[in-house]
Amino acid sequence: MISDDLVKRINWQINLNIIGKPEKLYEASQYLIKQGGKRIRPLLCLLSCKSAGGEIDKALNTAVAIELIHTFTLIHDDIMDKDDLRRGVPSVHRVYGESTSILAGDLLFAKAFEICDPRVKGILSKATVEICEGQEMDLSFELRDDVNVDEYLEMIRKKTASLFEASTKSGAVIANADKKTIEDFANYGRNLGMAFQIYDDVLDIIGEEEKFGKPIGSDIERGKKSIVILKALEKLPEKERENLKIFLRKENSKSEIQKAIALIKSSNAIEDCKAKAKFYIDEAKKSLINIPGSDEKKSLIEIADFVIKREK
Amino acid sequence: MISDDLVKRINWQINLNIIGKPEKLYEASQYLIKQGGKRIRPLLCLLSCKSAGGEIDKALNTAVAIELIHTFTLIHDDIMDKDDLRRGVPSVHRVYGESTSILAGDLLFAKAFEICDPRVKGILSKATVEICEGQEMDLSFELRDDVNVDEYLEMIRKKTASLFEASTKSGAVIANADKKTIEDFANYGRNLGMAFQIYDDVLDIIGEEEKFGKPIGSDIERGKKSIVILKALEKLPEKERENLKIFLRKENSKSEIQKAIALIKSSNAIEDCKAKAKFYIDEAKKSLINIPGSDEKKSLIEIADFVIKREK
Repeated sequence: MISDDLVKRINWQINLNIIGKPEKLYEASQYLIKQGGKRIRPLLCLLSCKSAGGEIDKALNTAVAIELIHTFTLIHDDIMDKDDLRRGVPSVHRVYGESTSILAGDLLFAKAFEICDPRVKGILSKATVEICEGQEMDLSFELRDDVNVDEYLEMIRKKTASLFEASTKSGAVIANADKKTIEDFANYGRNLGMAFQIYDDVLDIIGEEEKFGKPIGSDIERGKKSIVILKALEKLPEKERENLKIFLRKENSKSEIQKAIALIKSSNAIEDCKAKAKFYIDEAKKSLINIPGSDEKKSLIEIADFVIKREK
Repeated sequence: MISDDLVKRINWQINLNIIGKPEKLYEASQYLIKQGGKRIRPLLCLLSCKSAGGEIDKALNTAVAIELIHTFTLIHDDIMDKDDLRRGVPSVHRVYGESTSILAGDLLFAKAFEICDPRVKGILSKATVEICEGQEMDLSFELRDDVNVDEYLEMIRKKTASLFEASTKSGAVIANADKKTIEDFANYGRNLGMAFQIYDDVLDIIGEEEKFGKPIGSDIERGKKSIVILKALEKLPEKERENLKIFLRKENSKSEIQKAIALIKSSNAIEDCKAKAKFYIDEAKKSLINIPGSDEKKSLIEIADFVIKREK
């Protein structure tokens, strides 16, 4: 399969780029990347570049830069969210302490700009600005009771979809594609990112902890306003809605989390969210309608289908 | 005076570039910048560009980018060092909380790459990588008893001098200067940065709190291995050296900090460090010997003299 081969090249190239001293800092910077991850963003960059008529080699460093930016945001987010687990192992700050983890994130971000194609510097920096804005919105939602679905969609467009969009758009830019084609790939990436985040929120409720790599129900525990939770609050009868709100405001035992999950499931919010994710996937696929057929385009369509079927 | 005028233009341009939503995030990002600061790095960038035959206007966005990078590192450093005061006011994380402050730093860093000249992207990202490496060294020195002056010099070359070097080098690159001239400006900046940090360490012992903007003796309090402290440890007789080591390992009252400062002063370490700073200033000035005379070159020489005479 094309993708497996590309992921190997991405991993090889990542390893070449995070070498240096002091050792503790570089170990902390490599730690999360070495735990795996789907490499979906760099893969999207490479596949978009090739489907837009460009060469994989020319996009490889930018693809790696995008994975470094993604990793940097995960490391900093875990510090902010006080998350102890990521990809099934203790998070970076649990292993290396908070100070070195802040620095490890900063270092990866700096490395990303060192290696990316100069033509996409504006795309990647704009996406990172939006990721910060989205994360701040996400944090502020935890303290609010009145978040609506539109605000949530704006938040995930910034926090998640913007880097997906930057990945596919960068690939097309590096391929020297025309304006319309670049726009098509940008639209594909953004819609895919929206679906990805919505389905991530679904997995937080219906996933299996071992496969998902983090505790199920963690959004409830942190009072996150995920779309599943927002939809459940919208759909539940008043008494059940108030009960769910109580779980969102306090620390819960494992069995209380299970009760909250059962409440959410009873509301049919999961089905609504899956339909919403499917809507964005259809939009993503439609965006590629004018792109000529190729093995790489086929892979992009497969990835779109995979995003709303995955278990992790 | 040229510099005052340029600082006004820098400040104007900074304000134009940090606007957006969510409000809390942008307020946190602007907060430290609005407290003032000398703007020495962006000023060096502009003056270097002009003295190298370029136009101020073309370097303005890059100068601002450099100040944003500097501010981002201050915000993150204050979180790591748990410093409550910066530029005479509560530090960003004391006002906006740690999460928003991590994000404010990330946002400023991203904005820096959004606006900098594409030709200096490599220079600025390499400098930021070195700043992270230097900060990790600085943190690790706090836990060590056997740091030597050479290690310290390597640490400040990365943590402080690299961004000074990037500032002046970027200016020359934007001016389209030849290779030798770019190297001259880089050398000027690096040596100036070394002197700047050494004199900063001196001010931490002999400065006046009100002017310096942070508590005098804070390096002692945090067990930092500043050059003044290292030199004092080198020069003090054994009994006094052991006494100083005790102060470096524990929490101290204000009067104990005063005792430690008196010990350091008695060792003549201050004079050694001032001489070392003077050495780097002379090297910096020598680097500009082949640069044609101009008002801007004169300002660069004045800044070099100022760095080891300032009170803040």
